[in-house]
Amino acid sequence: MAKGKSKNASSAQTPAAPTSKLKVISLGGLEEIGKNITVLEYENDIIVIDCGMGFPDDEMPGVDFVIPDTTYLEKNEDKIRGIFITHGHEDHIGALPYVLRDLHVPVYATRLTLGILRNKLSEHSYDHAPELIECKAGDKIRAGVFSVEFIHVNHSIADACCFAIKTPVGMVVHTGDFKIDLTPIDGAMIDLPRLGQIGNEGVLLLMCESTNAERPGYSPSEKNVGASLEDIFFKNKDKRIVIATFSSNVHRVQQIIDTSAHYNRKVAITGRSMLNVVSASLELGYMNVPENVLIDINDIKKYNPEQLTIITTGSQGEPMSALSRMAFAEHDKVELGPRDLVVISASPIPGNEKLVGKVINELCKKRVSVIHSGVADVHVSGHANQEEIKMMHALLRPKFFMPIHGENRHLEAHKALAESMGMSPDQIFVSEIGRVLEVDKTTAKFNGTVPAGRVLVDGYGVGDVGNIVLRDRRHLAQDGLIVVVATIDTIERTIISGPDVVSRGFVYVREAEELMEEVRAIASEAIQECFESDMLDWNHIKSAVKDDLTKFLYAKTKRKPMILPVVMNV
Amino acid sequence: MAKGKSKNASSAQTPAAPTSKLKVISLGGLEEIGKNITVLEYENDIIVIDCGMGFPDDEMPGVDFVIPDTTYLEKNEDKIRGIFITHGHEDHIGALPYVLRDLHVPVYATRLTLGILRNKLSEHSYDHAPELIECKAGDKIRAGVFSVEFIHVNHSIADACCFAIKTPVGMVVHTGDFKIDLTPIDGAMIDLPRLGQIGNEGVLLLMCESTNAERPGYSPSEKNVGASLEDIFFKNKDKRIVIATFSSNVHRVQQIIDTSAHYNRKVAITGRSMLNVVSASLELGYMNVPENVLIDINDIKKYNPEQLTIITTGSQGEPMSALSRMAFAEHDKVELGPRDLVVISASPIPGNEKLVGKVINELCKKRVSVIHSGVADVHVSGHANQEEIKMMHALLRPKFFMPIHGENRHLEAHKALAESMGMSPDQIFVSEIGRVLEVDKTTAKFNGTVPAGRVLVDGYGVGDVGNIVLRDRRHLAQDGLIVVVATIDTIERTIISGPDVVSRGFVYVREAEELMEEVRAIASEAIQECFESDMLDWNHIKSAVKDDLTKFLYAKTKRKPMILPVVMNV
Repeated sequence: MAKGKSKNASSAQTPAAPTSKLKVISLGGLEEIGKNITVLEYENDIIVIDCGMGFPDDEMPGVDFVIPDTTYLEKNEDKIRGIFITHGHEDHIGALPYVLRDLHVPVYATRLTLGILRNKLSEHSYDHAPELIECKAGDKIRAGVFSVEFIHVNHSIADACCFAIKTPVGMVVHTGDFKIDLTPIDGAMIDLPRLGQIGNEGVLLLMCESTNAERPGYSPSEKNVGASLEDIFFKNKDKRIVIATFSSNVHRVQQIIDTSAHYNRKVAITGRSMLNVVSASLELGYMNVPENVLIDINDIKKYNPEQLTIITTGSQGEPMSALSRMAFAEHDKVELGPRDLVVISASPIPGNEKLVGKVINELCKKRVSVIHSGVADVHVSGHANQEEIKMMHALLRPKFFMPIHGENRHLEAHKALAESMGMSPDQIFVSEIGRVLEVDKTTAKFNGTVPAGRVLVDGYGVGDVGNIVLRDRRHLAQDGLIVVVATIDTIERTIISGPDVVSRGFVYVREAEELMEEVRAIASEAIQECFESDMLDWNHIKSAVKDDLTKFLYAKTKRKPMILPVVMNV
Repeated sequence: MAKGKSKNASSAQTPAAPTSKLKVISLGGLEEIGKNITVLEYENDIIVIDCGMGFPDDEMPGVDFVIPDTTYLEKNEDKIRGIFITHGHEDHIGALPYVLRDLHVPVYATRLTLGILRNKLSEHSYDHAPELIECKAGDKIRAGVFSVEFIHVNHSIADACCFAIKTPVGMVVHTGDFKIDLTPIDGAMIDLPRLGQIGNEGVLLLMCESTNAERPGYSPSEKNVGASLEDIFFKNKDKRIVIATFSSNVHRVQQIIDTSAHYNRKVAITGRSMLNVVSASLELGYMNVPENVLIDINDIKKYNPEQLTIITTGSQGEPMSALSRMAFAEHDKVELGPRDLVVISASPIPGNEKLVGKVINELCKKRVSVIHSGVADVHVSGHANQEEIKMMHALLRPKFFMPIHGENRHLEAHKALAESMGMSPDQIFVSEIGRVLEVDKTTAKFNGTVPAGRVLVDGYGVGDVGNIVLRDRRHLAQDGLIVVVATIDTIERTIISGPDVVSRGFVYVREAEELMEEVRAIASEAIQECFESDMLDWNHIKSAVKDDLTKFLYAKTKRKPMILPVVMNV
């Protein structure tokens, strides 16, 4: 590949035959849901699309969240012309507070996205204030050799865009997350005409999201939820209505407020992120609330239950969220009972089913009425189903296609969809994070990799929890641990004190005195045997204790607690 | 309550006005899915219905399964006339191997149920061989004052029954698990005529399962799966087909074998429980396999992929199951690739979604085609949906009703269904485990409780893992642990050796030397401060170390590892 042709990063692009190739690299969002981040690189210019966080799975106990490994960007910081954000969801902006510590590059996003981002950045401190540049749908931003056009899409958050990126080798479209909503709440349908026009002009590469690539048909309009809410409010005029939803779903919240106002209910908001987003949305004009409808949560006592709607966080059953606290009677402002109806206006994200179920059960136990997405149409997905995805392909008719934003199953399903529309397998590139796709005007092929991976965030620690720590946590969770402490004298070959045994998470010791006595005896024997066979090395003694105890305990209990021998030599 | 009227437990019941009340107690299966067990007690006679295990939730790391606390039965062993089992699923028989250690009472069940149970019991040892009595639909078993009639029902296992129990106060019907399948595989529909007859004769109390009480409509027939399989086999004639399902779903396995035979495929079985159930079913005549269709898994190399079907366990993504091992290339007999189609003929049980998803993703990565219940009709539930539940109520028209087998949400939904059919709330008893419902010919009310709860089984340990052990395991999983070891001399008030620090599951120590150094320094200071302030008590020193380190580490890392100070005094 010819390289370094243009030294000046912001030099004008020459429309004449480019000799270099465009590199397309995802550092996240492939073979996973979340931590979306895509890199486009041409010679001395790089742009980054999105910079999201992911959520830990069961294999990562104690981890708060996961961010992408951005080593490649740090090494190439001087090439980066900007980070372009499609919308304000955590899986698209959540890693920015961390990544912007090291990268001093401008961030381009729409107003609401920047509002949410500013809020997040305010919880961190920087040597150097991040440069945030507000854009709107229709804007075309020059970034080195690239020109990035913001195009309005529908999604479960307002002010979402996809990008049409002019590159020296041709047009690249990155859809971000999208759906096609023919009756959107804010009146603005995804800009299909502009996408169609771009399609007519020719698209070299389409990177299209795959979240719902397994789901047939169309995802219903956000307005359908409004119709369900209307029905629920109509039938429950005698109840206080508590509705949990995603705080970032501004349109959903708007519909809840509108329906409440229509039924002469006051609306109180609870949950930190819900309060944040509602105040940001009001301030920035993304929400429109009739006067005297919003009240402070502290004032709910002034109204009868049937005069109130409470909008809350906690639709995923998150244990510390406002809804969970209400369900478990730990919320200081809202006490729930038979006069309440709780509507969970969300679907459980895979993995959260049991958490949400716990909240529902606890509510049922308190004789609260509960309506959730399993029994009524109180939620619609923000992602395109198969027919909408096909619409995107049909409008853009790209030469090459890379499915993004999905686990393997979604990427493969998306590939099958593209093939069903006539693409040949050699036009489709199912990639993985770090893999480099090189594209020119007529060809595309994989060529090499760059560093990529996941960085775990646990408390203040970024990257200090790795595989060994996780393995130990899983081991400890499974069978607990036994600490064996002994003070020995290797010269006299005697045990001076101990072995003492401390256990945690293994058995309830008060009821297992006999077993603990056996543990002490076996540890003691193991040490004595080492003395007798001249194995006086500290490590040797420790592993003898460990091995003998592991064997004994497995035979006795079929468990394998972690064994930590602490042997001190005087 | 008049009590102890009849001293002889097996005395004939007098149809003349009973003066005692029937006690109805669930020891499991209420406010939970699983560990189903119901007790009926009248004076000196007790019968038990089912004795199942439950599965641990996220709050119980390392626990293998959960069984009911049967203290009440152990105390009243001499009254128990028998344990009656509705069908052979784990959540109905799984606790028997444990409970039968202490209770020497006969177990009544149908042939297949006993076949599965014998298999389980053979893995345990008993002083005293459990007495197992084979019954069949239509049988009426006398058990003290009770007479228990076995009535055939449809379910996702063969040979399932519900019970109509004649008691001195009236008829009690316990549905076990059921669905109404109008086109069952074995030709035997649930015995609706008999249920209708019993309804006409009068039912005092209905205990009806609630698993699918939130689901509208009818659950589709098992035969629908056959039609989908037919379609899949027809369209995939060039592939080897691997199908994962529940081993106990004999009819599903039968349909897979039949479809394979029809397409001239040989069938190999893998997975321990699948092999067990298939051999038991063949032996007992519950499965009917054409000759020369079944082959040994070791012989699959002798056939082309398109000549083979492999039936396997692992439909829930269980990490050690045959399907998981195939997906992760750890199965010694079956290697999967682009010429394979995997069909997951099951729905993920809530909580297993991510495990199943992992297997699907891994298969997609290997370019194996995957069909699962999210994209095709390859599974039907074995439980009655709302309309089937209503059919049961409509046929039996009980005086009193207790919803069973479900979490709070299911019990409440079932209650709402019963109300929608005209029952008044005071006829409906939503109970909880251990709660006693007293019923006579005309009244029913709650009166007191008996001991009930859950006993955790972890390895060979039954009940030795309790709340403290679980709390420690969760704590260790979250943030790991730090062991601080020091030898001190409280007379000289000096630290002789240490403090040394061992950490596991906290941070990767090699990259956190500085932090560990600080930990040592703080522990040392804490001990010195105790010396200086005359706090020489061993416990005091330990808690000083613990408190100071907890505070320091939280401020520094926002984590709270478990801190285990080991202080030895010479």
